[in-house]
Amino acid sequence: MSTPSELLADIERVGRDHGRGGYSRHVFEAPEHELREWFVEQAARRGLEVVPDGNGNLWAWWSGPGVSGPGEGAVATGSHLDSVPGGGEFDGPLGVVSALSAVDRLRAEGFRPGRPLALVVFAEEEGGRFGLPCLGSRLAAGTVAPERVLGLRDDSGTTLAEAMRAAGKNPDHTGPDESNLARVSRFLELHVEQGRGLVHRQRPVGVASTMLAHGRWRFRFTGQGNHAGATPLGDRRDPMLPASLLVAEARRVAANHDDARATVGRIQPLPSGTNVIAASVDVWLDARAHTDADTRGMVDELHRRAGVLAAEEGCSVRLSEESYSDTVSFDGSLRDELTTMLDAPELPTGAGHDAGVLAARMPTGMLFVRNPTGVSHAPEEHAEPADCDAGAEALATVLRRWSR
Amino acid sequence: MSTPSELLADIERVGRDHGRGGYSRHVFEAPEHELREWFVEQAARRGLEVVPDGNGNLWAWWSGPGVSGPGEGAVATGSHLDSVPGGGEFDGPLGVVSALSAVDRLRAEGFRPGRPLALVVFAEEEGGRFGLPCLGSRLAAGTVAPERVLGLRDDSGTTLAEAMRAAGKNPDHTGPDESNLARVSRFLELHVEQGRGLVHRQRPVGVASTMLAHGRWRFRFTGQGNHAGATPLGDRRDPMLPASLLVAEARRVAANHDDARATVGRIQPLPSGTNVIAASVDVWLDARAHTDADTRGMVDELHRRAGVLAAEEGCSVRLSEESYSDTVSFDGSLRDELTTMLDAPELPTGAGHDAGVLAARMPTGMLFVRNPTGVSHAPEEHAEPADCDAGAEALATVLRRWSR
Repeated sequence: MSTPSELLADIERVGRDHGRGGYSRHVFEAPEHELREWFVEQAARRGLEVVPDGNGNLWAWWSGPGVSGPGEGAVATGSHLDSVPGGGEFDGPLGVVSALSAVDRLRAEGFRPGRPLALVVFAEEEGGRFGLPCLGSRLAAGTVAPERVLGLRDDSGTTLAEAMRAAGKNPDHTGPDESNLARVSRFLELHVEQGRGLVHRQRPVGVASTMLAHGRWRFRFTGQGNHAGATPLGDRRDPMLPASLLVAEARRVAANHDDARATVGRIQPLPSGTNVIAASVDVWLDARAHTDADTRGMVDELHRRAGVLAAEEGCSVRLSEESYSDTVSFDGSLRDELTTMLDAPELPTGAGHDAGVLAARMPTGMLFVRNPTGVSHAPEEHAEPADCDAGAEALATVLRRWSR
Repeated sequence: MSTPSELLADIERVGRDHGRGGYSRHVFEAPEHELREWFVEQAARRGLEVVPDGNGNLWAWWSGPGVSGPGEGAVATGSHLDSVPGGGEFDGPLGVVSALSAVDRLRAEGFRPGRPLALVVFAEEEGGRFGLPCLGSRLAAGTVAPERVLGLRDDSGTTLAEAMRAAGKNPDHTGPDESNLARVSRFLELHVEQGRGLVHRQRPVGVASTMLAHGRWRFRFTGQGNHAGATPLGDRRDPMLPASLLVAEARRVAANHDDARATVGRIQPLPSGTNVIAASVDVWLDARAHTDADTRGMVDELHRRAGVLAAEEGCSVRLSEESYSDTVSFDGSLRDELTTMLDAPELPTGAGHDAGVLAARMPTGMLFVRNPTGVSHAPEEHAEPADCDAGAEALATVLRRWSR
């Protein structure tokens, strides 16, 4: 029987980012491919039958004598293996290795699932390569159309369709995946907590209550590229001015909404020369709040402010929405069942997850494992081995009950 | 006889940047290498003997029967072939092609120089790859030590020493180049104007008077990388806040100094994920003013402000100087001679040039060619063919007189 920590140790060298620190494991790139192969091998060792879908996701079904294999009324659990650039070791992989470890626990006690049980690895949950988070689960659930995403480009200009082909996948097979989703009656995702809610509650495992509405928007400010030395201040139309002022505006606007967040973690001047006034600047805004109205209200206010700031510098601005997910309130009776079964507290999350996408399709729950630093999307992200064990044990408890 | 425009047409396809627009021709990369080969071939066609120095610069000496070749008391002219990322067609190459065209004009009239005459191509004038502008001329003039620069890295982590080796050059040969510089009695650089001084004066060619003191500084703001959705505003130490506020501060501080400029054209958050609060942000400042005191005063003030802004967000900041050049006032009697000989107006420049480095070593002058847009370091940079011809003719006039 493998513990989550043992399984994580198995892949701890894959996709290390020596420039940024932490891990960069982007969908269909070499390290993520290596993680997929590793998962397929681990699944095979446990007698799980791996069936890739058309969207880059991997489904591993518990099969064997007296076990049903893929089928109706299934229970599924899983998470993702990709990371943000320079991300932590746990965000994503902890859910996958805990699922494998939970299977080990069930097998060790001779348990045979009475209904189909699947472990899922979703593709591009972070949107780290093509900009659209939960890409694999959105495609499977049909909440995003293939024609909208197959042309998305990574930083090097490669499209998703090209990346899929290079990875040996046929982009024509992307789209709603009823063959899997219609079979699943319940989904559960285990994830490292991205905050210190469980630290404050002094508990190793918790149950997700709600997820903030959230999305990504790109503001493109356009001015006039020019020489940084030869252009007097009065002659400038420098898009860096409104672009950078928007960063502080985002903080100010978010502070006016209850428990809202607005973040700029990515900004890209073009052409990006030290002695060059930028011709244009892209600013990516990540905005989240309790309600759709609050989230969209923040973005609208920032769009208006961006227009004013741009005009003051003789620049223009164009806004485009890259992704959006409404507030998720996880299934109430399922939450009650989980908190009772596990004697675990409920807590909200500001992060997005594949579970949030699936929650619109089926009763879905999430378990969180304590993170002593509270930090996530950064190398400092952590979970103690004992807490990871408690998470895998909790997951096994739920799967045992649900797949009886 | 080739005109400057004909020669520019010869290389107009080399190093086009289809992402940024314009040209990206960085030192020791393939397009810049192709331009070097082209220059060597053009020099050979004109009977010039090309002698590379140890610093990546190319010296082409007028040689042949009855002509002295390399030697004492020489006259030199030239510029550079590298560009900023996404730069214009003229910044650099116009000085090189005008020198070739001037030689054509002199040869066509049967002129034989009475003293050695050299055409020079300086390496990495823009600092577009390794961050230190006028790298080739600074190394040759001994104003920067090889041990300070050979370890400089480009964006992909390659050091200057590695790039030189890959280009077939021995980095051990970098350093002060007395074999060339001690021979040269006068240097003249022709350059596209980076502003509209000649447009306002309605003249095709002008003579440089002074160059602003200028330099590059990097501010590194460090905070705590974290999750953009899960981290409440009050728990953040987001270095994007002080980093972006510094951009507006730079504009404000420069506006308080007479004819000063301060620009941020490059900003790099790490890790640069849309849903990630940055762990650190690098901001490059290009600052220029009439005096050393003004320039350094601006940087000092911005350093203090950066410290305050960083502390307000629980971040820290570290400042490092990447390059600095004091004010240049070009040789007075040489300026008088040029303005009289060419009946051309004098005008100052806010840009830096290899001529500014050489001015500390020998009587040095600069000619500017009218730029109807005034834009530079951007694809809109332009010079009309007739004005380019006037520039080459002016250059021939000066070389004829100086090398009698």
